[in-house]
Amino acid sequence: MKECEKKVRASFARQGLMTTLGAELVSVAPGAVEIRIPFHASLSQQHDFVHAGAIASILDSSCGYAALSVAPADVDVLSVEFKVNLLAPAVGDAFVARGTVKRAGKKITVCAADAFAVRGKEEKLIATMLATIMNLPAAGVRR
Amino acid sequence: MKECEKKVRASFARQGLMTTLGAELVSVAPGAVEIRIPFHASLSQQHDFVHAGAIASILDSSCGYAALSVAPADVDVLSVEFKVNLLAPAVGDAFVARGTVKRAGKKITVCAADAFAVRGKEEKLIATMLATIMNLPAAGVRR
Amino acid sequence: MKECEKKVRASFARQGLMTTLGAELVSVAPGAVEIRIPFHASLSQQHDFVHAGAIASILDSSCGYAALSVAPADVDVLSVEFKVNLLAPAVGDAFVARGTVKRAGKKITVCAADAFAVRGKEEKLIATMLATIMNLPAAGVRR
Amino acid sequence: MKECEKKVRASFARQGLMTTLGAELVSVAPGAVEIRIPFHASLSQQHDFVHAGAIASILDSSCGYAALSVAPADVDVLSVEFKVNLLAPAVGDAFVARGTVKRAGKKITVCAADAFAVRGKEEKLIATMLATIMNLPAAGVRR
Repeated sequence: MKECEKKVRASFARQGLMTTLGAELVSVAPGAVEIRIPFHASLSQQHDFVHAGAIASILDSSCGYAALSVAPADVDVLSVEFKVNLLAPAVGDAFVARGTVKRAGKKITVCAADAFAVRGKEEKLIATMLATIMNLPAAGVRR
Repeated sequence: MKECEKKVRASFARQGLMTTLGAELVSVAPGAVEIRIPFHASLSQQHDFVHAGAIASILDSSCGYAALSVAPADVDVLSVEFKVNLLAPAVGDAFVARGTVKRAGKKITVCAADAFAVRGKEEKLIATMLATIMNLPAAGVRR
Repeated sequence: MKECEKKVRASFARQGLMTTLGAELVSVAPGAVEIRIPFHASLSQQHDFVHAGAIASILDSSCGYAALSVAPADVDVLSVEFKVNLLAPAVGDAFVARGTVKRAGKKITVCAADAFAVRGKEEKLIATMLATIMNLPAAGVRR
Repeated sequence: MKECEKKVRASFARQGLMTTLGAELVSVAPGAVEIRIPFHASLSQQHDFVHAGAIASILDSSCGYAALSVAPADVDVLSVEFKVNLLAPAVGDAFVARGTVKRAGKKITVCAADAFAVRGKEEKLIATMLATIMNLPAAGVRR
């Protein structure tokens, strides 16, 4: 396993929310991260679709980890902001979020991510995110 | 209880994700909704702050329900998109999201929401959202 | 010239701001529109870069016209909202915005667009937009 | 005139686009800036409303200058990203954008701004922005 993947997997494992959502880190490549959640009723909104907040959560993590995957070793990342468009109801057996780096800077990295509903072998685009991530010294994340 | 509050409370009770996050619907007034989650490690990101996705989830629901609270009786709402700025680490005993209607239209309602971290009697602004919500016939939400 | 291109070109010609910015409609294909502005000092911000608002203007028009290019003949479009990330200073001889349809719906179309600074034969990505566009009856745009 | 206002007015005077749009810097207070444009056909979109890009331009500048007004003396600002919701057609005699600081940080300042259409003595809310602005050493803005 490459260093960048190790760093991402170690961080992902510390995200309690990803466990709560049932999320799995499917793949980590430099600048590209995929996260998956199976459908579960505990993630629903009022129409039994998966809640936009759950989809936004895996999109946000996929963006943050795409940024982290290309950051220097001693750097950690924090989300500054993100925007998500919900394109279709989140209905399916599972949902994947694929984050990629749009531009990596010294201070700021901008990522884009798409989310898909999976039914059998088919994928349908259901959401898209544009996110701004800040680089921070790994030791310096203040509470 | 007013009709608009009944409708919002009934819909909120159907959101599995709100139960999963431990969220409570604190108050519903016409055009203004407050949702609260206590801190829990199951909501964390890698620095033990609450994950941006959990904060976005209650902000999104507070916006959606603020929109629903002023919508006609036979109308349901769906989030079209939202944007959230994370202003400070989500560290606290609890977190509240307060959504308000910025402009209610026939088809589209735009809401703004702020999230605060609560420690004892103090509140600190930690995030802010701007969201676009679509009105739909209550019977016509398609899968 | 195809119908969709005619409709877009006729609408573009009515946008006073595009003339003011010196903008040219480079190409129109179904779901993809390119707009170009040459550099001019009248578009600057305080560091002599082109102002984010000028770049946002051509990105917004490229998204709106990408949406219009795939809309039914009797439909017009209005921007509901957009979000733009400025990725690098807008420095160059000219700037192009390329808008594409991400998802076309009956009521709402979501588009993405990238802007590039052009210097000689080189292009550099300087901004990216995600936009929400509403379909309206062409006869029904109210003041 | 206070130092913060001097700095903002000097920077505003250098923005070629503000002159092109006919924009005037109405007021500068610490953390709050107002910019105004009169209606002019040169700012229009296809329905003779003012183009969303022109409104976004004065909103963006009002946010940037609100951030600058509270920044240390040796700091300059650059827009990282902004999101704007268009709430009503931009129809009126003039348009004002009022930007305020939501949270000022050492590296990042987040601002919100509203735009209003003015007709006689009446104002109507037509757009709202949420913007992320980066602090930079005034000497270090690189091309």
